[in-house]
Amino acid sequence: MRPIGVFDSGVGGLTVVKELIHQLPHEDIVYFGDTARVPYGIKSRETVIRFSIENILFLLKQDVKLICVACNTASSFALPVIKNHFKVPIVGVISPGVREAVYATQNKRIGVIGTKGTIKSRTYEIEINQLEPEVKVTAVACPLFVPFVEEGWLSGDVVLDVARTYLKPLKDARVDTVILGCTHYPLLRPVIKQVLGENVTLIDSAKQVAVEVKKILGSENILNTKGKGKHSFYVSDNPEWFSGLAERFLGNSLKKKKKAVSG
Amino acid sequence: MRPIGVFDSGVGGLTVVKELIHQLPHEDIVYFGDTARVPYGIKSRETVIRFSIENILFLLKQDVKLICVACNTASSFALPVIKNHFKVPIVGVISPGVREAVYATQNKRIGVIGTKGTIKSRTYEIEINQLEPEVKVTAVACPLFVPFVEEGWLSGDVVLDVARTYLKPLKDARVDTVILGCTHYPLLRPVIKQVLGENVTLIDSAKQVAVEVKKILGSENILNTKGKGKHSFYVSDNPEWFSGLAERFLGNSLKKKKKAVSG
Repeated sequence: MRPIGVFDSGVGGLTVVKELIHQLPHEDIVYFGDTARVPYGIKSRETVIRFSIENILFLLKQDVKLICVACNTASSFALPVIKNHFKVPIVGVISPGVREAVYATQNKRIGVIGTKGTIKSRTYEIEINQLEPEVKVTAVACPLFVPFVEEGWLSGDVVLDVARTYLKPLKDARVDTVILGCTHYPLLRPVIKQVLGENVTLIDSAKQVAVEVKKILGSENILNTKGKGKHSFYVSDNPEWFSGLAERFLGNSLKKKKKAVSG
Repeated sequence: MRPIGVFDSGVGGLTVVKELIHQLPHEDIVYFGDTARVPYGIKSRETVIRFSIENILFLLKQDVKLICVACNTASSFALPVIKNHFKVPIVGVISPGVREAVYATQNKRIGVIGTKGTIKSRTYEIEINQLEPEVKVTAVACPLFVPFVEEGWLSGDVVLDVARTYLKPLKDARVDTVILGCTHYPLLRPVIKQVLGENVTLIDSAKQVAVEVKKILGSENILNTKGKGKHSFYVSDNPEWFSGLAERFLGNSLKKKKKAVSG
């Protein structure tokens, strides 16, 4: 009966929550968004690790049975360091996306887009090449994408121009698969698709993360199979800002369920 | 011989430091940029006040003789609350800009642009109308300007398009004076000028802030008049990121003097 814990630097991790709710409708979920210190993507490795540990300790106080790090920057910097420190299973967003991308690519050229922190960490490249050394990885940071999503600029000439600039190295490298390595980016999927073309496969790791969470809960015999899951949302600042954005990330179906409490 | 303390959420306050160095060349300056928690512009009043108090306590440990709050969001939210709690004189960036704008306007229509926090606080409108009740104020938030400046997108079609969208209410209101109510915005002056036209006066409060600091130091007999001032820069995270941006804000003249230390 214990809940699944999910944390993110802010609101982006809700794209993962949406998929968890879809695939695991019987599970309770506790979400923590660190809106007082958002964004993580421009911050140093040491600071992101410290913030991640603090967020995990908050979720452990909520007696969670598994923790999902629904933030690519935190998964890149912190997960390799902290994963083995805790008894509770911890699932990040990198490995599930990597597995799906390596499975999807035909020409062995994968693109990765993410925050500055995620790209600088080189975690995606390292994990892809551990799984499949022959894959050529082209990784680019798209730092303006997060502010665009948070401001609701999801289409139009301005965003398209910025996307064309950022994604040019991926087009030049003729990748056939691109990992959306930041939980905000699925909201820009139409623009990214328009720039890269219909033939490029876009990987959003949220689905695979939920698959992995389900597998772990099943193997440890702690999967809920009855009842309707309850969902609680905590933030470290600005519940109004979070609530306003939450609809964009979760879709309207959850409008009435969400609750934002300063954590 | 005690230094002047300056703090900002990150790097934007360096536009104020540049002006302090120019007008007060004999003063030592200690700068603190809260890069671990940047940006403040999207955060709540309570959180910005808490962060501001923590920054002031850090600067007091450096034995500063005056504190300059070189961040519009912190000045808007925190200054009215905290100003009288401390013995040390505290100067914000709002009042100096307000005085200059009220002095400059001919048609009594002033525009204000700033972060979401600054605009939401209504501090500029309130201070302008306290000084001159007849002035009509049009205030708009320009949340994408800060990420554009920090990413170095200071000109070009994309920024121009965004500026046209944001500044339309100011054009419609036929303001003749606009306060650049965020320390990042002076770097976008050419674009803003291009959109608003040559006849609109842009107010950058940095100059007036330095005038006010000088006046206070003079009246309290703690103005340094000899020697070359030393300048120290502290950040709460990511000194490399700060150093990279610092040149853009300070200009090349200070290249060799700056030092970034995790505080």
